[in-house]
Amino acid sequence: MALIVQKYGGTSVGTVERIQAVAEKVKGWRDKGDDIIVVVSAMSGETNRLLDLAREIQGNPVPRELDVLLSTGEQVTIALLSMALDACGCSARSYTGHQVHIRTDGVHNKARILDIDATRIRRDLDKGRVVVVAGFQGSDEEGNITTLGRGGSDTSAVALAAALKADECQIYTDVDGVYTTDPRVVPDARRLERITFEEMLEMASLGSKVLQIRAVEFAGKYNVPLRVLSSFKEGKGTLITYEEQEMEEALISGIAFNRDEAKLTIVGVPDQPGVASKILCPIGKANIEIDMIIQNVGVDGTTDFTFTVHRNDYDKALAVLEQTRQDLRAREVSGDNRIVKISLVGVGMRSHAGIAGTMFEALANEGINIRMISTSEIKISVVVDEKYLELGVRALHAEFDLGDKPK
Amino acid sequence: MALIVQKYGGTSVGTVERIQAVAEKVKGWRDKGDDIIVVVSAMSGETNRLLDLAREIQGNPVPRELDVLLSTGEQVTIALLSMALDACGCSARSYTGHQVHIRTDGVHNKARILDIDATRIRRDLDKGRVVVVAGFQGSDEEGNITTLGRGGSDTSAVALAAALKADECQIYTDVDGVYTTDPRVVPDARRLERITFEEMLEMASLGSKVLQIRAVEFAGKYNVPLRVLSSFKEGKGTLITYEEQEMEEALISGIAFNRDEAKLTIVGVPDQPGVASKILCPIGKANIEIDMIIQNVGVDGTTDFTFTVHRNDYDKALAVLEQTRQDLRAREVSGDNRIVKISLVGVGMRSHAGIAGTMFEALANEGINIRMISTSEIKISVVVDEKYLELGVRALHAEFDLGDKPK
Repeated sequence: MALIVQKYGGTSVGTVERIQAVAEKVKGWRDKGDDIIVVVSAMSGETNRLLDLAREIQGNPVPRELDVLLSTGEQVTIALLSMALDACGCSARSYTGHQVHIRTDGVHNKARILDIDATRIRRDLDKGRVVVVAGFQGSDEEGNITTLGRGGSDTSAVALAAALKADECQIYTDVDGVYTTDPRVVPDARRLERITFEEMLEMASLGSKVLQIRAVEFAGKYNVPLRVLSSFKEGKGTLITYEEQEMEEALISGIAFNRDEAKLTIVGVPDQPGVASKILCPIGKANIEIDMIIQNVGVDGTTDFTFTVHRNDYDKALAVLEQTRQDLRAREVSGDNRIVKISLVGVGMRSHAGIAGTMFEALANEGINIRMISTSEIKISVVVDEKYLELGVRALHAEFDLGDKPK
Repeated sequence: MALIVQKYGGTSVGTVERIQAVAEKVKGWRDKGDDIIVVVSAMSGETNRLLDLAREIQGNPVPRELDVLLSTGEQVTIALLSMALDACGCSARSYTGHQVHIRTDGVHNKARILDIDATRIRRDLDKGRVVVVAGFQGSDEEGNITTLGRGGSDTSAVALAAALKADECQIYTDVDGVYTTDPRVVPDARRLERITFEEMLEMASLGSKVLQIRAVEFAGKYNVPLRVLSSFKEGKGTLITYEEQEMEEALISGIAFNRDEAKLTIVGVPDQPGVASKILCPIGKANIEIDMIIQNVGVDGTTDFTFTVHRNDYDKALAVLEQTRQDLRAREVSGDNRIVKISLVGVGMRSHAGIAGTMFEALANEGINIRMISTSEIKISVVVDEKYLELGVRALHAEFDLGDKPK
């Protein structure tokens, strides 16, 4: 008998019929003898409906009150799912984040979970009940309602799995697992049976938005086996696991990409200590997030400095950088917002030289010019012109033989 | 500087614009220097929307989960109102019933308030904040969410006023006070400046549905001065107060009536001890509420027994009573579901004889036949044929001179 935490997202509980389907699914697991904790999001559309109400009143709603408002979304779902479970003969109890003591810090709208007191949940499980918990929410030390930010239900599920030492945390979503790359770009992209936490982190942050990064970090930190599955399709999904366990023998797990990049360069900056922070601090103060950063070896006492930002922030970043150029007496500012990032991800590349060479050659063979390169231990990212995205991803997917193997 | 609890019902907070209007109203009181606690209901329509969702899943939703579901309605309103207060420069904090420790018994869907820990509210008031509390809800000893049943927000407001020893509890609604009778029946019905708790209880239970009976009882028990006012119209409303205070000099405060009555009679019952309970217990077991009960002096060892029920329960009551007739070997069962009840209410009648006579004479003058009579210390009720309702109410309103006095 296993203890399993299952998380169903907004689409999976978007209508009464779907909630009933989830109840049947949960009952199936329960009937097999497993103990089940279900974490749910708000019904799809509900969070936006509530946000719209708030914004009609206040362009920038008070964060504390926004949490009081938004947390009702999940509360509706837990009640309805518990009724649906009861209706199909499966004893269940719903709990808000506060009720099961999901204690967070006091940062409204993006709180972090500090700890969970699982006493009450254990008591219900011992009585044979399914426990249904509102995702995305908790409460701070003073009992104020907090929310974890969008997608926080994944984190709630993982945190509960960690607190209860669950055997597996299953994230049900509208895709049936993690793929070698986006099947819309490469039709023979293959679902991975397993992927490591580290690879998953790189895949997620690079644009394969299957799971929230924070949830994956959390799962890695507490060694919670995490599985991504489809709510609507039978299947085993993808298990996200630790490197120590037996892995598929692949060097490369997948190819991630990000369409929304823009790059900025400041040219002829005096090459002296502290200059990087003088360039990046004003960008940070303007609330612009930076992705890649590249600084080359300086020549003639000056250097060039390049970084990438989200495409939406391009114009704002350009203005900030122009101001910095004047302050630093740098030569010039340039940029490009028609670029994309393509990344090879795989723990296997750690111990294998030559992967980067193969990657660059495969791109060169297609006539794709590489504009920037950045590497970490388990990934190699290149920035190329937007128009080469599909061509580049397909070339790499073929080069590293990631496609569906013939059965 | 006074401490005032204000309660706004679902219609008063039914749209974003109305919530903003309530915020402006509250700010007006706050600017005068009063401490304000606001209790709100769910936005009108919201509770029914949630109920419909629940019933799609389960005809008879699990009571515990129904409370989890319904309590979100008020939670949405407290968040939006607090934002609206903040937006108009009035510092505010929202609280769910659970957060301010409105502790109730564990009877889901119609819980009763046991006590309130006002510490947290006092702290906020001391900081100059308006405190916004979700009506209709609390939590039991184990922290399960409970609701007080429909209209429970009035009770929440009165309970908070009692716990905090507020100077006044103001119930804002869509009428601007308590009237001598229904102005739709008697156009010159007059708003009462004051009415006693006892009179209000009789008025409410007799069909002038301005306030929930439980809220009035609660207010009387804890000596909370209660005022009914309009959310939409300026005015002083009606103060519900204790008899000890100076009262208007009227004998009669108002005329209540109830259209939904039905009466049943069992004729020729053996006149012996215990017969009343043999008749009424089966009715109670069938979950039928009884209003008036009349038993006349017996003749020839048998007696007749008459009572009234809600018109919706008429057929069911008739079937139960027919069974009782056979068991008791009574002569016959008869009934009438086209009757109404008209009541004179007034603490003044306690010390004045002759009121009943005047009342019956006024009805007789209009040719209205009285079918049943029942009296308490501060009210006289008669049952008459449905068709005489308006005529009877108008005749009594004129007879006791309750109309608008010329200014």
